[in-house]
Amino acid sequence: MTPNQPSWKEKLHEIIYEADTRSGKLFDIVLLIAILASVVLVMLESVPEIQKTHGDLLNIGEWILTILFSVEYGMRIISIKKPLRYIFSFYGIIDLLSTAPKYLSIFFVGTHSLVALRALRLLRIFRILKLARFIGESNNFIKALNASKAKISVFLYFVLILCIIIGTIMYLIEGADNGFTSIPRSVYWAIVTMTTVGYGDIAPQTPLGQLIASIVMILGYGIIAVPTGIVSSEMTKLNDVHLNTQACPNCSYEGHDDDAIFCNHCGSKLHD
Amino acid sequence: MTPNQPSWKEKLHEIIYEADTRSGKLFDIVLLIAILASVVLVMLESVPEIQKTHGDLLNIGEWILTILFSVEYGMRIISIKKPLRYIFSFYGIIDLLSTAPKYLSIFFVGTHSLVALRALRLLRIFRILKLARFIGESNNFIKALNASKAKISVFLYFVLILCIIIGTIMYLIEGADNGFTSIPRSVYWAIVTMTTVGYGDIAPQTPLGQLIASIVMILGYGIIAVPTGIVSSEMTKLNDVHLNTQACPNCSYEGHDDDAIFCNHCGSKLHD
Amino acid sequence: MTPNQPSWKEKLHEIIYEADTRSGKLFDIVLLIAILASVVLVMLESVPEIQKTHGDLLNIGEWILTILFSVEYGMRIISIKKPLRYIFSFYGIIDLLSTAPKYLSIFFVGTHSLVALRALRLLRIFRILKLARFIGESNNFIKALNASKAKISVFLYFVLILCIIIGTIMYLIEGADNGFTSIPRSVYWAIVTMTTVGYGDIAPQTPLGQLIASIVMILGYGIIAVPTGIVSSEMTKLNDVHLNTQACPNCSYEGHDDDAIFCNHCGSKLHD
Amino acid sequence: MTPNQPSWKEKLHEIIYEADTRSGKLFDIVLLIAILASVVLVMLESVPEIQKTHGDLLNIGEWILTILFSVEYGMRIISIKKPLRYIFSFYGIIDLLSTAPKYLSIFFVGTHSLVALRALRLLRIFRILKLARFIGESNNFIKALNASKAKISVFLYFVLILCIIIGTIMYLIEGADNGFTSIPRSVYWAIVTMTTVGYGDIAPQTPLGQLIASIVMILGYGIIAVPTGIVSSEMTKLNDVHLNTQACPNCSYEGHDDDAIFCNHCGSKLHD
Repeated sequence: MTPNQPSWKEKLHEIIYEADTRSGKLFDIVLLIAILASVVLVMLESVPEIQKTHGDLLNIGEWILTILFSVEYGMRIISIKKPLRYIFSFYGIIDLLSTAPKYLSIFFVGTHSLVALRALRLLRIFRILKLARFIGESNNFIKALNASKAKISVFLYFVLILCIIIGTIMYLIEGADNGFTSIPRSVYWAIVTMTTVGYGDIAPQTPLGQLIASIVMILGYGIIAVPTGIVSSEMTKLNDVHLNTQACPNCSYEGHDDDAIFCNHCGSKLHD
Repeated sequence: MTPNQPSWKEKLHEIIYEADTRSGKLFDIVLLIAILASVVLVMLESVPEIQKTHGDLLNIGEWILTILFSVEYGMRIISIKKPLRYIFSFYGIIDLLSTAPKYLSIFFVGTHSLVALRALRLLRIFRILKLARFIGESNNFIKALNASKAKISVFLYFVLILCIIIGTIMYLIEGADNGFTSIPRSVYWAIVTMTTVGYGDIAPQTPLGQLIASIVMILGYGIIAVPTGIVSSEMTKLNDVHLNTQACPNCSYEGHDDDAIFCNHCGSKLHD
Repeated sequence: MTPNQPSWKEKLHEIIYEADTRSGKLFDIVLLIAILASVVLVMLESVPEIQKTHGDLLNIGEWILTILFSVEYGMRIISIKKPLRYIFSFYGIIDLLSTAPKYLSIFFVGTHSLVALRALRLLRIFRILKLARFIGESNNFIKALNASKAKISVFLYFVLILCIIIGTIMYLIEGADNGFTSIPRSVYWAIVTMTTVGYGDIAPQTPLGQLIASIVMILGYGIIAVPTGIVSSEMTKLNDVHLNTQACPNCSYEGHDDDAIFCNHCGSKLHD
Repeated sequence: MTPNQPSWKEKLHEIIYEADTRSGKLFDIVLLIAILASVVLVMLESVPEIQKTHGDLLNIGEWILTILFSVEYGMRIISIKKPLRYIFSFYGIIDLLSTAPKYLSIFFVGTHSLVALRALRLLRIFRILKLARFIGESNNFIKALNASKAKISVFLYFVLILCIIIGTIMYLIEGADNGFTSIPRSVYWAIVTMTTVGYGDIAPQTPLGQLIASIVMILGYGIIAVPTGIVSSEMTKLNDVHLNTQACPNCSYEGHDDDAIFCNHCGSKLHD
C-alpha cells in the first residue's frame, strides 16, 4: 500500500471520526438514529404496561442495538492509533458503561437483583451523551457556559446559603404541625420557593410564615437579574474582541487600535 | 381604462393588501374585529353551559363570520395577479384551513363524528394567526427571535438531555410507589421541575430524592442566565452596527454622524 | 405683603409640593406614614377575626386618616394656582377616589349593600399609588419601563396567541374528563404552564398531553431570553449616550466625536 | 524580639487572618470543614428520627465544634491589635451569637424552654455566614449586587405595590368561598402568582378571576426583563471602564494598551 492509498484502517477512521465524506455522513446519521432509538427503548421498557405487552420485542431491539454499539466500539478501537486514548476519554467511558450492562444482565436473572437491573438500565441512558459529538465544540453556547460557570457557581452557593438560613427560620416559625418537620425539609421548601418552582406539597400556614414566604418569593424573583446580567456582560465582552488584524511591518506585532498611526510595540509607523 | 386610472381590481388590491388609503385602513380594522370575534366565538362554543344556552346564537354568528372570511378569501384571489402564490402562501393556507371546516361540518351531523367536529373547531382557532399581518415584518422582536433561534435551540436540547438523565436517576431512587412509575413519567417530572413550573402532581418523597430535586431546581433557576446572556449580546451587537457609510470626498474619512455636514477629520464639506 | 415675603399660600405650597425645607420634609414623612397606615388598616379590616375583635378601633383609625387626607386634599387645592389642574391630574383623581368612599359609607348601612361596601374598600387601597410621588420621575427604572413597553407588549401578545393555540390543542387531546372542560379553561392552563407558574389545579393526564405540556414548558422556559435580551440592549444603548459636551466655538453645535478636529456642522476648527 | 522576627502573636495573626503561608491555608481548610460539619449537625439534630437514634452522638459532636469555635474566637481576639474592632464587626458578632448558645443551653434543661431551645438552634445556623470570608471581597458578583441593589429594590417595591392592588381586586371578585378569605391572604396569592411560584394552595375559581390571574401571570412573566436589562447594562458599563491612565510624555495622548511601549499617536517611547 502506497502512502497515497489510504489503508482500510485509515478509511475506517475517516468514516467514524470525520464527517467529510459521504460514508462519514451516513455513519453519523445511522449512529444518531441508533442513539435516539436506544434512549426511547430504555424509556419504553420502564413503562409497566408496555413492558408486559411488548417485553420480548423491546428485548430483541435492545440486543440489536447493543451489538451495533459493541461493533462501533470495536471499530473505534481498531481505527485509532492510540486505543487507550479513546478508551479512557469521556466518550470512551460512556460507550463502555452504556453497552456493557446488557451483557452483564445475562448473569442477573433472579428477581432479587431487581435494583441492580434497574441500575443497569440507568447506565444505558448515558448513551444520550454520545449526541454531544454532533453539537460541535466551537459552539458559542459551550464557550458561554464555560466562561460563566465560575460566576454562576458563586451565585448558586449564595442562593443555597440563603435557603438554609430561611429554611431554619421557617422551621422555627411554622413548626412540624404545618409540614415543616425538620430543618432539611424546611430548607427543601425554601429551595422550592426561592427557585419559583412552588410544588405546594409544603406551604406556610401561619400569617408570619406567609409574610416571610412572600419576601422569599419576591427576592427569588428579583435576584435572578444578577447572574443574568453578569453572563450578558461576559457575552457582550466577547463581542468586542478586537478584530483589527493589522500587523506592524517592522515587528509583526498585532493588536493595534483602529486609529493608531504608530506601532505601540516598536515605535515604527504602521503605514506610509 | 388609462394607465393613470386604476382598475377596480387594482383598487381592490390596494384596499386589501395595503393600508395607505382610508378604505384600506377601514378594511384592516373590520378584519381585525372579525378575527377577534371569531376566536372568542370558538372559545365560547367550547364552554358546555354557554353552548346549551346560546348554542343557536353562536352558530349564526359563526356562519356570518365564515361567509365574511370566504368573501375576503375570494377578494384576495381576484385582486392579486398570481392567485396561486397566495393560495399556497402561509396566510393562504391558514385562511383556507380555518374557513373550510364550517362548510364541511354540514356533512358531519351524527354524534359519532364528535372527535372530528372537535378537530374542526381546532382549525378555526388558527384564524388568530391572521393577526400576524398587523404586527409588521420589520419588527425588531421578530428579527431578535430569528437571530437567536439557533442558540436557544441548542440550549433547549441541552436542557432536554439533562432532564432525561435526571428523570432516569429519580426513577431509580424514588420508584413507582412515590409517583415515579416509569422513566417517561420521571422525565416529565424533571421537565416540570427544571423549568420551575412545579405542578406538584408528582413530587419526590425520599430525602435523597428531595436532595437531588433541590440540585435540579437550583440548576434550572441558574442556567436560564446563559441563553439570556447570549440573546442580550446578540441584540447589543445589532446596536453597534454602523449605519453611516458616507466617506469624505476630500480625505475619505468614514465615521460621520448621520446629520454631519462637514468632515470632522479635514473640515471639507461632505456633499454639495 | 412684599414680593420678598412669601404669602401663607406660597408657604403652604412649598411645604406640600416641595421637599427642600424642614417643614416640607416633615410633611412628606407624615404623609408617608399616613399612607402606609391606611393601607395596613384596609388589609386588617378584611380579616374576619380582626374585624370581629377590633372592628371599632379600626373604624376610628380609618376616620382619623380619612379626615387627615381630606385636609391634605383641601390644602393642595388652596395652595395651588390652578386647582382644576390638580383635581383632574392622576394624583388628584386618586386622592378623591380613595378618600370619598368613607363619607359615602355613612349612607350604606344596610347588609344588602355588602358588595358596594367591599367595592368601596377597594378604592381605598389606591392610596398606595400616592407613594409614587416619593420614587422620583427621573428614575432610570421608569425610563427603562417606558422605553421597553412597546417591545415587551409585542412579546406578551405573541405569548398570548401561542397559549390560545396550545390551549385548544390540549382541549382536544385531554378532554373534559381530565379537567380541560372548555377552551377558555384550557387556555388558562396553557398560560399557567407557559409562564412557569404551575398551580397544579389542572394538569395533563394522558401521555400525549404530558408530552405536549413538556414542549410548552421548555418553550416558556427558553423564550423568556428574547424580551430580556431586547431590554438589555436598550439599556446598554442608553449607556453609550454621547457624553462629549464640547461646543463648537463658531456655531455652538454640540455632538462631536471625541476625536473630531473640525466641527461637522459648520466646518470650523474645534480648537486651536 | 527583633523587628525582623515576628512574635508569636504576629505569627498567629498571619495564620488566622491571612492565607499566604502553608499554616494559613491549613487553618482555612480546617475552619471550612468545621463550619460545614457544624451546619450539617444542626440540620440533622432537627430531624426527629435521627435525634432519637443518634442524639447523644450529635450532642458530643456539637460540643467538640463549639469548643473549637470558642478557641478560634479566643485566638482571633488575642492576635489582633484592636480586639474591640473584631468583636463588633460583622464576623465578630456572628461568631459570638453562633457559639454562645451551646453554653447557654446548659441552663435551659426543662421542657418548657423548648421554643427557646429551638431559637438557640437557629443562631447556630448563622455559622454558615463565616463562609463568606472564603468568597473574596473583590468578587465581581458582590460588586454587581451592590451596584444593582438600588435599582432592583425600586423594581421589587413596584412589584409589591402591584401585588397589593391585584390582591385586593381578586378579594373582591373571588371572595371568601374560593379561598380568598381576606386582603392579606389575597395579596399572598398575588405574590405567589406574580413571582411565578404558583403553589396552588389558593387558585381562582371564577372565570373572571381566572382571566385576571392570566393577566397577572403574563405580566409577571414579562416584566422580569426590566430589572435584568438594567443589571445587564450596569455590568456592561463596568466592562468599558478605561483602566489605563497612562499619558504619552510627548503628545499627552491617552488611550494606550496596557502593554504598549510606544505611543500610537506620535511614536515616542511611553516611559524610560
